[in-house]
Amino acid sequence: MTRAAERREALRITAAARGLDAVLVTNLLNVRYLTGFTGSNGALLVRTDGRDLFGTDGRYTTQAGVQVPDVELLVDRATVSALAAAAVRGRTGRLGYESHDLTVDGLAALEKVLADAAAGGAVPELASVRRAVEAQRAIKDEDEIESLRRACAVADTALAELAAEGALRPGRTELEVGRELDARMLALGAEAPSFETIVAAGANSAIPHHRPDSTVLRDGDFLKLDFGATVDGYHSDMTRTVVLGDAADWQREIYELVAASQAAGRAALAVGADVVEVDATARRVIAEAGHGEHFTHGLGHGVGLEIHEAPGIGQLGAGTLASGMAVTVEPGVYLPGRGGVRIEDTLIVTDDEPELLTLTSKELLVL
Amino acid sequence: MTRAAERREALRITAAARGLDAVLVTNLLNVRYLTGFTGSNGALLVRTDGRDLFGTDGRYTTQAGVQVPDVELLVDRATVSALAAAAVRGRTGRLGYESHDLTVDGLAALEKVLADAAAGGAVPELASVRRAVEAQRAIKDEDEIESLRRACAVADTALAELAAEGALRPGRTELEVGRELDARMLALGAEAPSFETIVAAGANSAIPHHRPDSTVLRDGDFLKLDFGATVDGYHSDMTRTVVLGDAADWQREIYELVAASQAAGRAALAVGADVVEVDATARRVIAEAGHGEHFTHGLGHGVGLEIHEAPGIGQLGAGTLASGMAVTVEPGVYLPGRGGVRIEDTLIVTDDEPELLTLTSKELLVL
Repeated sequence: MTRAAERREALRITAAARGLDAVLVTNLLNVRYLTGFTGSNGALLVRTDGRDLFGTDGRYTTQAGVQVPDVELLVDRATVSALAAAAVRGRTGRLGYESHDLTVDGLAALEKVLADAAAGGAVPELASVRRAVEAQRAIKDEDEIESLRRACAVADTALAELAAEGALRPGRTELEVGRELDARMLALGAEAPSFETIVAAGANSAIPHHRPDSTVLRDGDFLKLDFGATVDGYHSDMTRTVVLGDAADWQREIYELVAASQAAGRAALAVGADVVEVDATARRVIAEAGHGEHFTHGLGHGVGLEIHEAPGIGQLGAGTLASGMAVTVEPGVYLPGRGGVRIEDTLIVTDDEPELLTLTSKELLVL
Repeated sequence: MTRAAERREALRITAAARGLDAVLVTNLLNVRYLTGFTGSNGALLVRTDGRDLFGTDGRYTTQAGVQVPDVELLVDRATVSALAAAAVRGRTGRLGYESHDLTVDGLAALEKVLADAAAGGAVPELASVRRAVEAQRAIKDEDEIESLRRACAVADTALAELAAEGALRPGRTELEVGRELDARMLALGAEAPSFETIVAAGANSAIPHHRPDSTVLRDGDFLKLDFGATVDGYHSDMTRTVVLGDAADWQREIYELVAASQAAGRAALAVGADVVEVDATARRVIAEAGHGEHFTHGLGHGVGLEIHEAPGIGQLGAGTLASGMAVTVEPGVYLPGRGGVRIEDTLIVTDDEPELLTLTSKELLVL
């Protein structure tokens, strides 16, 4: 059984437990997760009786044959409608759908197709499955973890190469550094950067999500780099903050503080740990040093086919950690107008110690 | 008045004409279009009385101040809910929303917030505005056209440089060429490639949407490159097909055929032209040469903040062209197992001749 087939099997069990005869999966990342299909148009009908159907349009007939060899293929320009009609033909009683993904217009169109296809006969009853597939996706299998390892390695290597070549030096602009980091990740095999790379120098490093601009790197600056690589569709996410030239005392002080908080956060990643408590463990370190108000965001988040996915690790999070979750730990201290530090790794929660996927050193790097 | 303010003014007129007191814009690209905001979380309340509200979360307070200086700012983690509550406080009678964007869960949450905020008072009546903002976006203003010109120039230059450096030669792989093209566009100032760059060599060129893989470029191959650059959020889109080494007669034949079809399609881009007829004009050239069945997709599509947007130019399209529309013209002939040709430009429809933004030659390039 392929990984994708195993994942469909798990969804089938969820569907049966909820009294559904089938689930119409429209979220494209969920479709990818459940089939391996990477095209831009596809939907999946998972049936409790095992007769699944994958729908896409004519552009992807060949690709679907290669990527989804183990699911019956339905080629139609109106993918979702065609699968809905097939569900009616298959006498589906209760049909699950993704209410967090389907738009209001999409639901109206689906209801119309079901009624038309039923032609006076029984119309399937629609019931939301909520984020059932996302809940599955929060726990990574070995294939996914391997993709994340490779994505993290690409980002690690890109940064190491740029640092070794002296690309991170005073006189260059944030934009130049960001573009080189992106280009290097692509050259190392990334499909794309995980998100718009953040390069923030000097006072800009105090802005958590600064967009790189023409700001010139200067001697004595903090340089904060938040970036990642996508491999097999899986996103890595890392942040390192370095100092250009000699580090001032205040820079060493907040760097060591953030590093200590980050270590505490990583150590708190255990199976069964409450995500609010994991955040609190790392946050306490910063708050006790009097910088609580300068740590303005959550501690971390899940990563996978999306750069932000379940679980959220923060004060407003909910739930506990489970083995196989891929998460970031990324505390920061930001002093407005002066500079800020964030240190972020991607890790896998395990029954033992968490597996650290971001391997770049967290010693303060003075370039 | 800024461009963004002009665009909000146009939407205000549409809203008033439809009897709406306000429109809640949730589609992030529509929000960007109407405000200039480029962050990942934002929504906009456009009110017919002119008191607009822009909502985003605390990460973007500074950015919103810079990018959206002319709209009152509301900072709240739950952006849409906060704007909805503000609409209730402003005694909105009929509230427009984007039913093609809002999910089923999103609508349910919106209805709850409206009822809660009304606290027993009058609850605004919801009415879909459909794709009102997208309809505005189909007609580009001069700022948008200038961004598209720059996006097209980046793609043109990247290809010219790679060709001049001999990067498109036998022995290299599709993936290598694709990554170099992407990296070059970034180095030339693109924010990102417009989409996953297509590099298709030899028989792969007969697959309209081939994903680049480790296929090695060989002497005598067609090499099809479909790619674009994003600048200011605007997407360029171009395809060129070259021959590596000497071109065989069959290759020259289908190349000239596609070029003639493409020229006919470009010549048909006139204000008031029916999009189905524009497609038919180009398609006829290919069909009359006996290759109708080998041209398996539509002739073109609008481009802008999205790589595919209105208008669609194809057999299933609807509507007529208007001055200021940005469209692609991209016929192709694909001979399965042998090879295919596609030639694609991005152009602006004008009252006069269309303005050609893709400036790379369409002569058959033999490298």
